[in-house]
Amino acid sequence: MQIAILLFDRFTALDAVGTYEILSRTPGAETVFVAERAGAVRNDSGSLDLVAHRALDEVPAPDLVIVPGGPGQHHQMENENLLGWLRRADATSTWTTSVCTGSLLLAAAGLLKGRRATSHWLALDTLKDYGAEPTGERVVLDGKYVTAAGVSSGIDMGLTLLGRIAGDRTAQAVQLLTEYDPQPPYDAGSPQKAPAGLVEEWRGRSRFILQ
Amino acid sequence: MQIAILLFDRFTALDAVGTYEILSRTPGAETVFVAERAGAVRNDSGSLDLVAHRALDEVPAPDLVIVPGGPGQHHQMENENLLGWLRRADATSTWTTSVCTGSLLLAAAGLLKGRRATSHWLALDTLKDYGAEPTGERVVLDGKYVTAAGVSSGIDMGLTLLGRIAGDRTAQAVQLLTEYDPQPPYDAGSPQKAPAGLVEEWRGRSRFILQ
Repeated sequence: MQIAILLFDRFTALDAVGTYEILSRTPGAETVFVAERAGAVRNDSGSLDLVAHRALDEVPAPDLVIVPGGPGQHHQMENENLLGWLRRADATSTWTTSVCTGSLLLAAAGLLKGRRATSHWLALDTLKDYGAEPTGERVVLDGKYVTAAGVSSGIDMGLTLLGRIAGDRTAQAVQLLTEYDPQPPYDAGSPQKAPAGLVEEWRGRSRFILQ
Repeated sequence: MQIAILLFDRFTALDAVGTYEILSRTPGAETVFVAERAGAVRNDSGSLDLVAHRALDEVPAPDLVIVPGGPGQHHQMENENLLGWLRRADATSTWTTSVCTGSLLLAAAGLLKGRRATSHWLALDTLKDYGAEPTGERVVLDGKYVTAAGVSSGIDMGLTLLGRIAGDRTAQAVQLLTEYDPQPPYDAGSPQKAPAGLVEEWRGRSRFILQ
Protein backbone atom coordinates (compact mmCIF):
# COMPACT_ATOMS: atom_id res chain seq x y z
CA MET A 1 0.00 0.00 0.00
CA GLN A 2 1.05 3.59 -0.57
CA ILE A 3 0.87 6.02 2.36
CA ALA A 4 0.96 9.75 1.58
CA ILE A 5 1.70 12.31 4.28
CA LEU A 6 0.81 15.85 3.26
CA LEU A 7 3.13 18.68 4.23
CA PHE A 8 2.47 22.40 4.02
CA ASP A 9 4.20 25.51 5.29
CA ARG A 10 4.01 25.82 9.11
CA PHE A 11 2.77 22.30 9.78
CA THR A 12 3.41 20.85 13.25
CA ALA A 13 6.26 18.35 13.06
CA LEU A 14 5.08 15.80 15.62
CA ASP A 15 1.62 15.62 13.98
CA ALA A 16 3.31 14.20 10.91
CA VAL A 17 6.23 12.30 12.41
CA GLY A 18 4.40 10.59 15.30
CA THR A 19 1.93 9.10 12.85
CA TYR A 20 4.70 8.39 10.34
CA GLU A 21 6.84 6.51 12.83
CA ILE A 22 4.01 4.03 13.47
CA LEU A 23 2.34 3.66 10.08
CA SER A 24 5.51 3.65 7.95
CA ARG A 25 6.20 0.32 9.67
CA THR A 26 3.12 -1.23 8.04
CA PRO A 27 4.43 -4.38 6.33
CA GLY A 28 4.75 -3.80 2.60
CA ALA A 29 3.90 -0.11 2.74
CA GLU A 30 5.64 2.65 0.82
CA THR A 31 5.45 5.97 2.67
CA VAL A 32 5.91 9.25 0.83
CA PHE A 33 5.87 12.84 2.03
CA VAL A 34 4.05 15.10 -0.45
CA ALA A 35 3.53 18.84 -0.78
CA GLU A 36 2.44 21.29 -3.44
CA ARG A 37 6.07 21.46 -4.52
CA ALA A 38 8.69 18.84 -3.77
CA GLY A 39 11.46 20.05 -1.47
CA ALA A 40 11.99 21.12 2.11
CA VAL A 41 8.88 22.24 4.00
CA ARG A 42 9.29 24.38 7.10
CA ASN A 43 7.36 23.74 10.31
CA ASP A 44 5.40 26.11 12.55
CA SER A 45 8.30 27.22 14.73
CA GLY A 46 10.61 27.76 11.75
CA SER A 47 13.44 25.58 13.02
CA LEU A 48 12.60 22.25 11.35
CA ASP A 49 12.56 21.31 7.66
CA LEU A 50 11.11 18.01 6.53
CA VAL A 51 11.55 17.09 2.89
CA ALA A 52 8.56 16.42 0.64
CA HIS A 53 9.93 13.95 -1.90
CA ARG A 54 7.03 14.33 -4.32
CA ALA A 55 4.65 17.00 -5.54
CA LEU A 56 0.92 16.40 -5.15
CA ASP A 57 0.31 15.47 -8.77
CA GLU A 58 3.00 12.78 -8.58
CA VAL A 59 0.98 10.95 -5.92
CA PRO A 60 -2.56 10.91 -7.29
CA ALA A 61 -4.00 7.81 -5.65
CA PRO A 62 -2.50 6.88 -2.27
CA ASP A 63 -4.19 4.12 -0.30
CA LEU A 64 -3.81 5.99 2.97
CA VAL A 65 -3.81 9.78 3.23
CA ILE A 66 -2.48 11.45 6.39
CA VAL A 67 -3.05 15.18 6.89
CA PRO A 68 -1.20 16.77 9.81
CA GLY A 69 -2.20 20.08 11.33
CA GLY A 70 -0.41 23.11 12.59
CA PRO A 71 -0.89 26.88 12.46
CA GLY A 72 -0.24 26.85 8.69
CA GLN A 73 -3.45 24.90 8.13
CA HIS A 74 -5.33 28.17 8.38
CA HIS A 75 -3.74 29.45 5.17
CA GLN A 76 -4.65 26.33 3.21
CA MET A 77 -8.40 26.39 3.90
CA GLU A 78 -9.16 27.96 0.52
CA ASN A 79 -6.23 26.50 -1.41
CA GLU A 80 -8.10 24.70 -4.18
CA ASN A 81 -4.93 23.01 -5.44
CA LEU A 82 -4.45 21.29 -2.11
CA LEU A 83 -8.16 20.72 -1.37
CA GLY A 84 -8.68 19.35 -4.88
CA TRP A 85 -5.85 16.87 -4.36
CA LEU A 86 -7.44 15.79 -1.08
CA ARG A 87 -10.79 15.19 -2.81
CA ARG A 88 -9.22 13.23 -5.66
CA ALA A 89 -7.01 11.17 -3.33
CA ASP A 90 -10.00 10.50 -1.11
CA ALA A 91 -12.04 9.25 -4.06
CA THR A 92 -9.87 6.13 -4.26
CA SER A 93 -8.26 5.91 -0.81
CA THR A 94 -8.86 3.08 1.61
CA TRP A 95 -8.30 5.39 4.58
CA THR A 96 -8.40 9.19 4.79
CA THR A 97 -6.96 10.48 8.05
CA SER A 98 -5.83 13.56 9.92
CA VAL A 99 -4.05 14.66 13.06
CA CYS A 100 -4.76 17.88 14.96
CA THR A 101 -6.12 20.70 12.78
CA GLY A 102 -5.52 18.56 9.70
CA SER A 103 -9.17 17.58 10.15
CA LEU A 104 -10.16 21.17 9.31
CA LEU A 105 -8.53 20.66 5.90
CA LEU A 106 -10.46 17.44 5.35
CA ALA A 107 -13.58 19.32 6.46
CA ALA A 108 -12.85 22.26 4.14
CA ALA A 109 -12.51 19.77 1.29
CA GLY A 110 -16.05 18.66 2.10
CA LEU A 111 -15.02 15.19 3.23
CA LEU A 112 -16.36 15.22 6.78
CA LYS A 113 -19.96 16.38 6.20
CA GLY A 114 -22.24 14.57 8.62
CA ARG A 115 -19.32 12.58 10.02
CA ARG A 116 -18.05 12.30 13.56
CA ALA A 117 -14.54 13.73 13.79
CA THR A 118 -12.02 15.27 16.14
CA SER A 119 -9.27 17.90 16.06
CA HIS A 120 -6.99 19.85 18.36
CA TRP A 121 -9.11 20.78 21.41
CA LEU A 122 -8.85 24.47 20.51
CA ALA A 123 -10.27 23.78 17.03
CA LEU A 124 -13.08 21.34 17.79
CA ASP A 125 -15.89 23.87 17.42
CA THR A 126 -14.64 24.95 13.99
CA LEU A 127 -15.42 21.47 12.63
CA LYS A 128 -19.12 22.33 12.98
CA ASP A 129 -18.76 25.16 10.46
CA TYR A 130 -18.10 22.50 7.83
CA GLY A 131 -20.91 20.14 8.79
CA ALA A 132 -18.83 17.70 10.81
CA GLU A 133 -19.85 16.49 14.26
CA PRO A 134 -16.95 17.10 16.68
CA THR A 135 -16.35 14.65 19.51
CA GLY A 136 -13.90 14.97 22.36
CA GLU A 137 -12.41 11.52 21.74
CA ARG A 138 -8.70 11.14 21.03
CA VAL A 139 -9.13 8.99 17.93
CA VAL A 140 -12.40 8.93 15.98
CA LEU A 141 -13.24 6.36 13.30
CA ASP A 142 -16.21 7.02 11.03
CA GLY A 143 -16.10 4.65 8.08
CA LYS A 144 -12.80 5.15 6.32
CA TYR A 145 -12.26 8.56 7.93
CA VAL A 146 -10.00 8.53 10.95
CA THR A 147 -9.26 11.77 12.78
CA ALA A 148 -7.04 12.30 15.80
CA ALA A 149 -6.88 15.05 18.42
CA GLY A 150 -3.91 17.41 18.91
CA VAL A 151 -0.28 16.82 17.92
CA SER A 152 0.81 13.73 19.89
CA SER A 153 -2.45 11.83 19.25
CA GLY A 154 -1.21 10.73 15.84
CA ILE A 155 0.77 8.01 17.63
CA ASP A 156 -2.43 6.58 19.11
CA MET A 157 -4.20 6.91 15.76
CA GLY A 158 -1.30 5.19 14.03
CA LEU A 159 -1.47 2.17 16.33
CA THR A 160 -5.26 1.99 16.06
CA LEU A 161 -5.09 2.05 12.29
CA LEU A 162 -2.12 -0.32 12.08
CA GLY A 163 -4.12 -2.84 14.10
CA ARG A 164 -6.97 -2.60 11.57
CA ILE A 165 -4.64 -2.85 8.58
CA ALA A 166 -2.10 -5.42 9.72
CA GLY A 167 -3.59 -7.03 12.83
CA ASP A 168 -3.16 -6.65 16.57
CA ARG A 169 0.13 -8.52 16.76
CA THR A 170 1.86 -6.26 14.26
CA ALA A 171 0.55 -3.16 16.02
CA GLN A 172 1.73 -4.52 19.36
CA ALA A 173 5.17 -5.24 17.87
CA VAL A 174 5.43 -1.66 16.63
CA GLN A 175 4.32 -0.35 20.04
CA LEU A 176 7.03 -2.48 21.65
CA LEU A 177 9.74 -1.43 19.20
CA THR A 178 8.89 2.25 19.56
CA GLU A 179 8.68 1.63 23.32
CA TYR A 180 5.38 3.49 23.51
CA ASP A 181 4.71 3.06 27.20
CA PRO A 182 3.87 6.67 27.98
CA GLN A 183 4.73 8.05 31.39
CA PRO A 184 4.15 11.79 31.23
CA PRO A 185 5.47 13.56 34.33
CA TYR A 186 2.30 15.69 34.49
CA ASP A 187 -1.38 14.95 33.88
CA ALA A 188 -2.22 18.04 31.87
CA GLY A 189 -2.68 16.64 28.38
CA SER A 190 -6.32 17.57 27.79
CA PRO A 191 -8.53 20.53 28.71
CA GLN A 192 -10.36 18.21 31.12
CA LYS A 193 -7.16 17.35 32.98
CA ALA A 194 -5.00 20.49 32.80
CA PRO A 195 -5.26 23.23 35.45
CA ALA A 196 -8.37 25.29 34.61
CA GLY A 197 -6.44 28.56 34.57
CA LEU A 198 -4.08 27.21 31.93
CA VAL A 199 -6.95 26.05 29.72
CA GLU A 200 -8.63 29.45 29.90
CA GLU A 201 -5.38 31.27 29.22
CA TRP A 202 -4.80 29.28 26.03
CA ARG A 203 -8.41 29.50 24.90
CA GLY A 204 -7.89 33.25 25.02
CA ARG A 205 -4.74 32.96 22.94
CA SER A 206 -6.11 30.42 20.48
CA ARG A 207 -6.48 32.86 17.61
CA PHE A 208 -2.76 33.41 17.89
CA ILE A 209 -1.95 29.71 18.03
CA LEU A 210 -4.16 28.45 15.28
CA GLN A 211 -3.31 31.04 12.65
CA MET B 1 19.51 28.92 25.45
CA GLN B 2 20.69 27.01 22.41
CA ILE B 3 19.38 23.46 21.88
CA ALA B 4 21.29 21.24 19.43
CA ILE B 5 19.72 18.05 18.07
CA LEU B 6 22.26 15.75 16.44
CA LEU B 7 21.30 13.95 13.24
CA PHE B 8 23.15 11.10 11.53
CA ASP B 9 22.37 8.72 8.72
CA ARG B 10 19.63 6.20 9.66
CA PHE B 11 18.48 7.95 12.81
CA THR B 12 14.95 7.22 14.05
CA ALA B 13 12.71 10.17 13.26
CA LEU B 14 10.44 10.12 16.30
CA ASP B 15 13.45 9.96 18.66
CA ALA B 16 14.44 13.40 17.40
CA VAL B 17 11.07 14.97 16.63
CA GLY B 18 9.17 13.88 19.76
CA THR B 19 11.83 15.50 21.92
CA TYR B 20 12.07 18.47 19.55
CA GLU B 21 8.34 19.17 19.64
CA ILE B 22 8.45 19.59 23.41
CA LEU B 23 11.81 21.23 24.06
CA SER B 24 11.79 23.61 21.08
CA ARG B 25 8.92 25.30 22.91
CA THR B 26 11.23 26.28 25.79
CA PRO B 27 10.75 30.03 26.18
CA GLY B 28 13.65 31.90 24.64
CA ALA B 29 15.32 28.82 23.19
CA GLU B 30 16.88 28.54 19.74
CA THR B 31 16.74 24.97 18.43
CA VAL B 32 19.09 23.81 15.70
CA PHE B 33 19.48 20.48 13.95
CA VAL B 34 23.15 19.62 13.43
CA ALA B 35 25.02 16.88 11.57
CA GLU B 36 28.53 16.25 10.31
CA ARG B 37 27.54 18.05 7.13
CA ALA B 38 24.63 20.48 6.83
CA GLY B 39 21.86 19.24 4.57
CA ALA B 40 19.19 16.57 4.44
CA VAL B 41 19.75 13.53 6.68
CA ARG B 42 17.90 10.31 5.88
CA ASN B 43 16.20 8.23 8.57
CA ASP B 44 16.33 4.49 9.29
CA SER B 45 13.53 3.46 6.95
CA GLY B 46 14.84 5.62 4.10
CA SER B 47 11.59 7.49 3.49
CA LEU B 48 12.12 10.59 5.64
CA ASP B 49 14.66 13.40 5.30
CA LEU B 50 15.10 15.95 8.04
CA VAL B 51 17.37 18.90 7.32
CA ALA B 52 20.44 19.62 9.44
CA HIS B 53 20.79 23.39 9.19
CA ARG B 54 24.31 23.48 10.60
CA ALA B 55 27.45 21.39 10.56
CA LEU B 56 28.90 20.27 13.90
CA ASP B 57 31.68 22.85 14.00
CA GLU B 58 29.14 25.65 13.52
CA VAL B 59 27.49 24.72 16.84
CA PRO B 60 30.40 24.29 19.24
CA ALA B 61 28.77 25.08 22.58
CA PRO B 62 25.04 24.32 22.80
CA ASP B 63 23.40 24.59 26.22
CA LEU B 64 21.35 21.46 25.65
CA VAL B 65 22.51 18.54 23.53
CA ILE B 66 19.98 15.96 22.32
CA VAL B 67 21.22 12.75 20.72
CA PRO B 68 18.56 10.56 19.11
CA GLY B 69 19.09 6.89 18.36
CA GLY B 70 18.28 4.58 15.52
CA PRO B 71 19.98 1.74 13.68
CA GLY B 72 22.53 4.18 12.24
CA GLN B 73 23.95 4.78 15.71
CA HIS B 74 25.93 1.57 15.31
CA HIS B 75 28.02 3.06 12.53
CA GLN B 76 28.91 6.16 14.55
CA MET B 77 30.35 4.38 17.58
CA GLU B 78 33.93 4.93 16.42
CA ASN B 79 33.38 8.17 14.51
CA GLU B 80 35.84 10.42 16.31
CA ASN B 81 34.56 13.51 14.52
CA LEU B 82 31.10 13.00 15.99
CA LEU B 83 32.27 11.66 19.37
CA GLY B 84 34.76 14.53 19.67
CA TRP B 85 31.99 17.04 19.06
CA LEU B 86 29.90 15.36 21.75
CA ARG B 87 32.78 15.60 24.24
CA ARG B 88 33.45 19.25 23.45
CA ALA B 89 29.76 20.19 23.53
CA ASP B 90 29.36 18.32 26.80
CA ALA B 91 32.26 20.21 28.35
CA THR B 92 30.15 23.38 28.43
CA SER B 93 26.56 22.11 28.18
CA THR B 94 23.99 22.57 30.92
CA TRP B 95 22.24 19.35 29.88
CA THR B 96 23.49 16.42 27.81
CA THR B 97 20.69 14.10 26.79
CA SER B 98 19.75 11.17 24.59
CA VAL B 99 16.79 9.18 23.36
CA CYS B 100 16.84 5.47 22.53
CA THR B 101 20.25 4.18 21.38
CA GLY B 102 21.54 7.74 21.38
CA SER B 103 22.75 6.91 24.89
CA LEU B 104 25.21 4.42 23.35
CA LEU B 105 26.83 7.34 21.53
CA LEU B 106 27.10 9.33 24.76
CA ALA B 107 28.55 6.20 26.35
CA ALA B 108 31.01 5.66 23.49
CA ALA B 109 32.15 9.26 23.96
CA GLY B 110 32.96 8.33 27.56
CA LEU B 111 30.31 10.58 29.05
CA LEU B 112 28.27 8.01 30.96
CA LYS B 113 31.01 6.21 32.94
CA GLY B 114 29.67 5.31 36.36
CA ARG B 115 26.36 6.99 35.60
CA ARG B 116 22.84 5.60 35.69
CA ALA B 117 21.36 5.68 32.21
CA THR B 118 18.77 4.08 29.95
CA SER B 119 18.36 3.20 26.28
CA HIS B 120 16.09 1.24 23.96
CA TRP B 121 15.16 -1.95 25.83
CA LEU B 122 17.05 -4.03 23.26
CA ALA B 123 20.23 -2.01 23.87
CA LEU B 124 20.24 -1.69 27.67
CA ASP B 125 22.91 -4.32 28.27
CA THR B 126 25.29 -2.68 25.81
CA LEU B 127 25.50 0.37 28.09
CA LYS B 128 27.47 -1.78 30.54
CA ASP B 129 30.25 -2.25 27.98
CA TYR B 130 30.97 1.46 28.35
CA GLY B 131 30.86 1.60 32.13
CA ALA B 132 27.31 2.97 32.47
CA GLU B 133 24.75 1.49 34.83
CA PRO B 134 21.60 0.69 32.85
CA THR B 135 18.22 1.04 34.52
CA GLY B 136 14.84 0.03 33.16
CA GLU B 137 13.30 3.45 33.86
CA ARG B 138 11.78 5.46 31.02
CA VAL B 139 13.62 8.69 31.82
CA VAL B 140 16.82 8.68 33.89
CA LEU B 141 18.42 11.81 35.35
CA ASP B 142 21.96 11.59 36.70
CA GLY B 143 23.33 15.06 37.24
CA LYS B 144 23.15 16.91 33.96
CA TYR B 145 22.84 13.67 31.98
CA VAL B 146 19.31 12.75 30.99
CA THR B 147 18.69 9.59 29.00
CA ALA B 148 15.37 8.25 27.74
CA ALA B 149 14.26 4.77 26.69
CA GLY B 150 13.15 3.83 23.17
CA VAL B 151 11.84 6.13 20.42
CA SER B 152 8.62 7.63 21.88
CA SER B 153 10.14 8.21 25.33
CA GLY B 154 11.72 11.45 24.16
CA ILE B 155 8.34 13.11 24.67
CA ASP B 156 8.35 12.15 28.35
CA MET B 157 11.98 13.22 28.67
CA GLY B 158 11.19 16.52 27.00
CA LEU B 159 8.42 17.32 29.44
CA THR B 160 10.55 16.26 32.43
CA LEU B 161 13.40 18.47 31.31
CA LEU B 162 11.16 21.38 30.33
CA GLY B 163 9.74 21.33 33.85
CA ARG B 164 13.26 21.61 35.28
CA ILE B 165 14.28 24.37 32.86
CA ALA B 166 11.14 26.50 32.68
CA GLY B 167 8.95 25.33 35.55
CA ASP B 168 5.95 23.04 35.94
CA ARG B 169 3.42 25.46 34.54
CA THR B 170 5.27 25.89 31.25
CA ALA B 171 5.71 22.14 30.92
CA GLN B 172 2.01 21.61 31.63
CA ALA B 173 1.11 24.23 29.02
CA VAL B 174 3.21 22.42 26.42
CA GLN B 175 1.62 19.10 27.39
CA LEU B 176 -1.80 20.69 26.94
CA LEU B 177 -0.94 22.32 23.61
CA THR B 178 0.54 19.11 22.21
CA GLU B 179 -2.48 17.30 23.70
CA TYR B 180 -0.24 14.66 25.21
CA ASP B 181 -2.92 12.59 26.92
CA PRO B 182 -1.77 9.19 25.68
CA GLN B 183 -4.37 6.51 25.06
CA PRO B 184 -2.59 3.66 23.30
CA PRO B 185 -5.05 1.03 22.03
CA TYR B 186 -2.75 -1.76 23.29
CA ASP B 187 -0.62 -2.16 26.41
CA ALA B 188 2.48 -3.56 24.75
CA GLY B 189 4.92 -0.66 25.03
CA SER B 190 7.59 -2.30 27.16
CA PRO B 191 9.12 -5.79 27.40
CA GLN B 192 7.38 -6.17 30.77
CA LYS B 193 3.95 -5.47 29.26
CA ALA B 194 4.08 -6.89 25.73
CA PRO B 195 3.16 -10.52 25.01
CA ALA B 196 6.18 -12.64 26.00
CA GLY B 197 6.37 -14.32 22.59
CA LEU B 198 6.70 -10.95 20.90
CA VAL B 199 9.49 -9.85 23.22
CA GLU B 200 11.45 -13.03 22.60
CA GLU B 201 10.92 -12.80 18.85
CA TRP B 202 12.38 -9.30 18.74
CA ARG B 203 15.22 -10.09 21.13
CA GLY B 204 16.21 -12.72 18.57
CA ARG B 205 16.05 -10.17 15.77
CA SER B 206 17.75 -7.38 17.70
CA ARG B 207 21.02 -7.62 15.81
CA PHE B 208 19.05 -6.84 12.68
CA ILE B 209 17.20 -3.95 14.26
CA LEU B 210 20.04 -2.23 16.00
CA GLN B 211 22.53 -2.29 13.14
